[in-house]
Amino acid sequence: MPLPSSVRIYEVGPREGFQIEDQLIKTEDKVNFINNINQTGILDIEVTSFVNPKLVPNMADAEVLLANIVRNPNVNYRAVYLNIKGLSRAIEQDITIDGQVSISASDIFAKRNTNKSADELLDTIPDWVSAYRKFGVPVDQFALMATFGCNFEGVISLEKVMSTLRKAKSLLEENGETLRKLKLCDTMGWANPEQIKRTIFAIKNEWPEIDIILHLHDTRGLGLANAYAALQEGISEFESAIGGLGGCPFAAVKGAAGNIATEDFVFLCENLGINTGVNLSRLLECVELAEKIVGRELPGHLRSGGLTLVKTV
Amino acid sequence: MPLPSSVRIYEVGPREGFQIEDQLIKTEDKVNFINNINQTGILDIEVTSFVNPKLVPNMADAEVLLANIVRNPNVNYRAVYLNIKGLSRAIEQDITIDGQVSISASDIFAKRNTNKSADELLDTIPDWVSAYRKFGVPVDQFALMATFGCNFEGVISLEKVMSTLRKAKSLLEENGETLRKLKLCDTMGWANPEQIKRTIFAIKNEWPEIDIILHLHDTRGLGLANAYAALQEGISEFESAIGGLGGCPFAAVKGAAGNIATEDFVFLCENLGINTGVNLSRLLECVELAEKIVGRELPGHLRSGGLTLVKTV
Repeated sequence: MPLPSSVRIYEVGPREGFQIEDQLIKTEDKVNFINNINQTGILDIEVTSFVNPKLVPNMADAEVLLANIVRNPNVNYRAVYLNIKGLSRAIEQDITIDGQVSISASDIFAKRNTNKSADELLDTIPDWVSAYRKFGVPVDQFALMATFGCNFEGVISLEKVMSTLRKAKSLLEENGETLRKLKLCDTMGWANPEQIKRTIFAIKNEWPEIDIILHLHDTRGLGLANAYAALQEGISEFESAIGGLGGCPFAAVKGAAGNIATEDFVFLCENLGINTGVNLSRLLECVELAEKIVGRELPGHLRSGGLTLVKTV
Repeated sequence: MPLPSSVRIYEVGPREGFQIEDQLIKTEDKVNFINNINQTGILDIEVTSFVNPKLVPNMADAEVLLANIVRNPNVNYRAVYLNIKGLSRAIEQDITIDGQVSISASDIFAKRNTNKSADELLDTIPDWVSAYRKFGVPVDQFALMATFGCNFEGVISLEKVMSTLRKAKSLLEENGETLRKLKLCDTMGWANPEQIKRTIFAIKNEWPEIDIILHLHDTRGLGLANAYAALQEGISEFESAIGGLGGCPFAAVKGAAGNIATEDFVFLCENLGINTGVNLSRLLECVELAEKIVGRELPGHLRSGGLTLVKTV
C-alpha cells in the first residue's frame, strides 16, 4: 500500500502532557503554549480535560484556559472527559465535541484507570449514547485503550481486540448509532511494528469503512517505528505530543518517554514526502517553550538533533 | 521480503560511546563495562580505537584495555583505526581485524573528518590494500560514511552513493581484492526509512553478493524506524551502542542522541520474532553501568520504559 500523501496530526501535549506533571503548571503558561501551537499549522489541539480537579489539579483550570486562549479559526480545539458530568462541562464550551466513548482491550488497565472492568465499560455505551444525544452529538467513535499490551495483563491478543470491538460496535448499533472512527491507543507503549500492521489489517478487513487514528507512546523506543508501520498501512491520522510530553503513569521508571514527539513525527512524515501542513521551525519553538514550562529537557529528538533544512527525499 | 529470522549485533558503545566523552573515562570502568557486555550474548564488540591519543585522549589506553579485559571465547573483539599506523598497532593485538577501508559519500564530511576529500579517500584504497596484505588480511569491506546525508553538504543522492561505491569497488578489484561487505553509516542521522529501503534495494540490485551492515544514529529520532525499514529489506547486521551512547560531534546541540540504543533495537527485534541471542535483562544491567560510568542518563528508552516481560508477538 502506498504511503498516504498527507497526515492529520492531533496535538495532545497541552492535555496529556500537562496532566501528568506533578508540579502545577500556570494557566498563563498553558495559554501561551496553545497560542504558539496555533501558529504551527497544526489544526487539532487537545487543550484540556474536564475531570475532577481534586484528582487532576493541573486540569482544574479547564474553563479559564478556554476563555483565555486566542482562537485560530482554522484550529479545532478538543478536550477529554471521562464521564457524563465531564461531557456536560465540555459541551458548554466553544470546542469540537467528538462523539467518542473510551473502551479498553485490557481488563486490569480498565479497572485501574476507570474503576470498571472492560465489560463494564462496554455497558456504559448506551448511557453515553443518550447523554450525547441530549446535546445532538452522534456517537461514532471509540478510543480503545491498551490495544497492544498492558503492563498488568501482558500482551493483548488480536483476537481479544477484535472481540472487544465487535461487542462494542454491536452495542453502539443496537443503540441506533454508527461507528465511523476508531482510535487505537498504545497506552503503555507495548506495540511493535508488525503488530500494528496486523491489527490495522484485521480491522480494515472487517470494517473497511472505519477510519483509524493511532495514539502511540514511545515508552520503549518503538514509537516512530510503529508510526512508520501504520503509515505503510495507509493510516493518516495520528495523535502526538510536542517534545514527547506526557508519559505513562504505569511505566517502570518515572520519567519514561511519553507520547511520540510531534516534531519527530512531522520530521519523519516530511522526509517521507507526506504533507503535514506543519511549520517545523515554529514547532521547534513550541518544543523549547514546553521545555521551559516543565523545566526539563523533553525526550523528542529533533530539537537537539537539529533540522536537516534540506529535505532528504 | 520476509524479516530476517535472526540478526547479528555489533556493539560499538565502548568505542564510539566513550570516544566522544569530554571527561576521561577510567580504563577499569571500560574493562568492567566490556566484561559485562561479554555476558549479554552479544558476540561482536568494538572495544577501542587505535588513534592519536592527543586527539582522542579516551582511546589512549587501547593496548592496556585489551590486556585487561576478560576474554569470552565466543566474542569477537574489534577496534577502529583511521590510518596505517593505527592498523599496525591493532594488528599486534589479539582482536578480529576486518579488511575494511572507510570511504565517504560526502566530500565536506570527509574533509572535516579525515582531512581528505571523498576522492582522495578513494585514492588511499591501494595503500590500504598493500598495508593489509603485509599482515595477510584481504580487504573485502567498505564503510561508507555519511551515506544518507551530511550536516554540511545536505542530502546525499542515491546516484552519488552508487557512483562512489562503483569507483571504490573498481579500485579494489584493480588491486586484486573482492568486495564482500558494505557498511552503510548514517553518520549524522539523516536517513529516513524509505531512503534506507531505496538505498538497500539499489545496492542489492547491482551487487546481490554483497552483505550490507547498517550503522544507524538516532540524532533526529528516526533510528529505529530506519532499522525496521532495513529489516524489511532483509538486512540482518547492525551496529548499535548500549544506552544509545555516542553521538554526532556535528549535531546542532551537544547532547543530541547518538547511535541507536542496542537495548531498544534488541527489544524491537525480539518483539518482531527476530532472534538476537541477547539476554535483555543482562543488557539492561549494562545500560545502568554505562549511565554510572558517564554520569548521566542515556537516551535509550527501555531502561526507563521497562521490559514488557511477555513477548508481544
